[in-house]
Amino acid sequence: MNDRSALEPTAVQGSVLIAGVGASNGLGAAIARRFAAGGYPVAIAGRNADKLAATAAELAASGATVAHVVGDASRAADVARFVEAAERLAPLAMAVHNAGSNRPAPFLKVSEQRFEEHWREHALGGFQLAQAAIPALLARGGGTLVFTGASGSLRGKANYSPFAAAKAALRALAQSVAREFGPQGIHVGHVVVDGGIEGDRLLSMRPQLKDERGPDGMLNIAAIADAYWVLHHQHRSAWTLELDLRPWAEQF
Amino acid sequence: MNDRSALEPTAVQGSVLIAGVGASNGLGAAIARRFAAGGYPVAIAGRNADKLAATAAELAASGATVAHVVGDASRAADVARFVEAAERLAPLAMAVHNAGSNRPAPFLKVSEQRFEEHWREHALGGFQLAQAAIPALLARGGGTLVFTGASGSLRGKANYSPFAAAKAALRALAQSVAREFGPQGIHVGHVVVDGGIEGDRLLSMRPQLKDERGPDGMLNIAAIADAYWVLHHQHRSAWTLELDLRPWAEQF
Amino acid sequence: MNDRSALEPTAVQGSVLIAGVGASNGLGAAIARRFAAGGYPVAIAGRNADKLAATAAELAASGATVAHVVGDASRAADVARFVEAAERLAPLAMAVHNAGSNRPAPFLKVSEQRFEEHWREHALGGFQLAQAAIPALLARGGGTLVFTGASGSLRGKANYSPFAAAKAALRALAQSVAREFGPQGIHVGHVVVDGGIEGDRLLSMRPQLKDERGPDGMLNIAAIADAYWVLHHQHRSAWTLELDLRPWAEQF
Amino acid sequence: MNDRSALEPTAVQGSVLIAGVGASNGLGAAIARRFAAGGYPVAIAGRNADKLAATAAELAASGATVAHVVGDASRAADVARFVEAAERLAPLAMAVHNAGSNRPAPFLKVSEQRFEEHWREHALGGFQLAQAAIPALLARGGGTLVFTGASGSLRGKANYSPFAAAKAALRALAQSVAREFGPQGIHVGHVVVDGGIEGDRLLSMRPQLKDERGPDGMLNIAAIADAYWVLHHQHRSAWTLELDLRPWAEQF
Repeated sequence: MNDRSALEPTAVQGSVLIAGVGASNGLGAAIARRFAAGGYPVAIAGRNADKLAATAAELAASGATVAHVVGDASRAADVARFVEAAERLAPLAMAVHNAGSNRPAPFLKVSEQRFEEHWREHALGGFQLAQAAIPALLARGGGTLVFTGASGSLRGKANYSPFAAAKAALRALAQSVAREFGPQGIHVGHVVVDGGIEGDRLLSMRPQLKDERGPDGMLNIAAIADAYWVLHHQHRSAWTLELDLRPWAEQF
Repeated sequence: MNDRSALEPTAVQGSVLIAGVGASNGLGAAIARRFAAGGYPVAIAGRNADKLAATAAELAASGATVAHVVGDASRAADVARFVEAAERLAPLAMAVHNAGSNRPAPFLKVSEQRFEEHWREHALGGFQLAQAAIPALLARGGGTLVFTGASGSLRGKANYSPFAAAKAALRALAQSVAREFGPQGIHVGHVVVDGGIEGDRLLSMRPQLKDERGPDGMLNIAAIADAYWVLHHQHRSAWTLELDLRPWAEQF
Repeated sequence: MNDRSALEPTAVQGSVLIAGVGASNGLGAAIARRFAAGGYPVAIAGRNADKLAATAAELAASGATVAHVVGDASRAADVARFVEAAERLAPLAMAVHNAGSNRPAPFLKVSEQRFEEHWREHALGGFQLAQAAIPALLARGGGTLVFTGASGSLRGKANYSPFAAAKAALRALAQSVAREFGPQGIHVGHVVVDGGIEGDRLLSMRPQLKDERGPDGMLNIAAIADAYWVLHHQHRSAWTLELDLRPWAEQF
Repeated sequence: MNDRSALEPTAVQGSVLIAGVGASNGLGAAIARRFAAGGYPVAIAGRNADKLAATAAELAASGATVAHVVGDASRAADVARFVEAAERLAPLAMAVHNAGSNRPAPFLKVSEQRFEEHWREHALGGFQLAQAAIPALLARGGGTLVFTGASGSLRGKANYSPFAAAKAALRALAQSVAREFGPQGIHVGHVVVDGGIEGDRLLSMRPQLKDERGPDGMLNIAAIADAYWVLHHQHRSAWTLELDLRPWAEQF
């Protein structure tokens, strides 16, 4: 986006928290890179200490101001630490809830535990992040809160009940919070990622997928991250609550 | 509906289970009355033993074959007992998940516990009922599974995040299960009740509402129950997954 | 539906107009049969004089009170005649807009004329019927107005732009009119027929389809007509604006 | 957007056509300014020769390469001239259909002519532009086609049937074309502008609206135009079909 908009903010202010960061070749890391490249200090959080540390080290090596915090976004105490870590860098300007686990199965094979795990990761995690981030954003005078959605956010398909139920809950949460806090200066966004993400999570399970889908047939993580960047920088007279992202050749 | 359709089943077969029955002047009880009046043995289940027993007694007094089971639909063991009770009457032909709790609050006043309670009642309860009822329905060669939804199933509003997130999850579950089990003969329905229900739950909290809304300005519980009756009796070549119900004068 | 609801009207009052009736083995004719069997005088209208006369004769032979009017529902003058014909039987209680033409084609092969024809049949036809029927329904103190929709009403697919654009317009019209006239006693319904209809239109083009789809794999026209019957007889405290209908084994 | 994405195109190539340009203080003109500022030659088209010429002169004065063509986007011959004018500047890279007329009225006061005019402007105009632009975009190897939508694109409200029916048709068209031509390299976008636009059209009718809505309470036209810029520059692995835009304080 090689031309400055007349409307964009003239100075980067505040920190960006991304909850749900794992391997460097994943969406959470890509969002962190995008904002770090744009001058924001970033706090990254995730459950896998090793992956998180490696991603943080890589970000730091590229010149980013970065903090990392190990924890589970579905736990209030952990999320409070995430926000504190971000605020030690700068007042919180943006928080991202990024979760992607999806274990489809025939419905009668889905255990109660499995159903609940999906809800905890996607819906409760989004709830906790919103609970912790909104007061910080309000204290700064506003900011951005973005949730990563999926095609399952919009409709349930056979074998996808745990994921679809969890993602639909998250979307309804995003809508509720948008309506309540928009007039208080908080821009809530919900990004519907409709297709396979070209990152470690999916490629480690199905390495052949990239060839099957052809050139740019999976969602490039840096391209997705651009959408988060755009959401945060939209003028408040024209905020987007929801947008979809899918590969050009996707059947939908 | 004073004329028989050429397509309707000529004999009532099987039992109907309604989970989420409370006071006689409530939707769950009205669904039970509708099917009992149509000749089905009904099993009713709910958490409040006193209300449930009174409703069961009233149904029995009017000539219904009725069983009642105290329990919590979000617990697998309880729901298993619900299905067993229905099957003691006759092979399970239909199961209804009917839950209505909704405690709106400003988002920052919503506790994690409150958020989770809504999910347990609406989403996990629907999951448990589906898990227990589907094998029974399949064993009989098909049947009907209906979930009670609300306007919150479709979108989140300010102060409604716990309810909307839970009901949106339930709707996604319904869609997933419909797609998986339709071809196996299970008709899944999702009823979007969009407006105030003229029953004990709402009127006990806001007794003036009925006058405010004017004649037929709240949803009559027997009128809602008719929709469940219709869903169960639709010809399998033309099944409805979702319908909305709202009072004639509702602003929407 | 072998049991009377406590809520249903105790007397049939008024006439039913169905615009978009052709061969006897079609949806329009089936709707007419359903209401005639229920005791309503019916006025049927369509563009094909021969088919319409044959269908009317068949209805009359079965004991129905029936009028038929040749005309094009997209023309105001014709639709005025439709309503007059119905009102000669009895005050208008219900009007149905039923149109089904769909000629899919690659987008660059779609002529402007083709695109406009679809709009005239589906959207303008619905507009004209609503314009003519609503004053008559209001004069009677309320009534029902139902539009036949399709999966294309909800989303556009490759090669379906003329149909989807026309049906989406019709759906938006239905929503607008529902919100304006609901509080004046007019029940507006929109029926999403999602699948192949087992009638002359489709089977004459693709006779093998019925076998391909298997038992009850296409929508039975009498089963669809039942939904129109139900809409007209819903209690006004619980009106349905939209419902979908699809065969049990449909992939969706 | 003060940081270049690694994914964005490194060179501006091709012309941008905006159909539906009027006064300088309108959305069409703002889109033209946005792309002209980004280095694209722009062709602007509209029905009002005087306004169009003034807007073109203003663009040229600011250094833009600009062509302007008077015509009606709902006419195939005019739209062909629009595309030719753009292609004289450079191969067509992007075409925008931007129409905004909306004359709400009680349904029974809406004339057939009024209903048809809305359809011609929004739906047929979009069809014609797509018909003319797609071959040019395909010849270039791909490009972008964006339609301006509104809240009426998603649902009909009382008094809005002409606009909602027309905009819903346009949206269905956009979806159909997206699915057909995405895999051929054409990025179709549909922008749901949900709120009052701070431009001549609305402010000339309701000049007090800006004060009523408060700071940034109406959609800034340059802020909307940014969304079109972003759509055109998205990486093809992550294209957006639809996004909404609304003011921060909008009740929705």
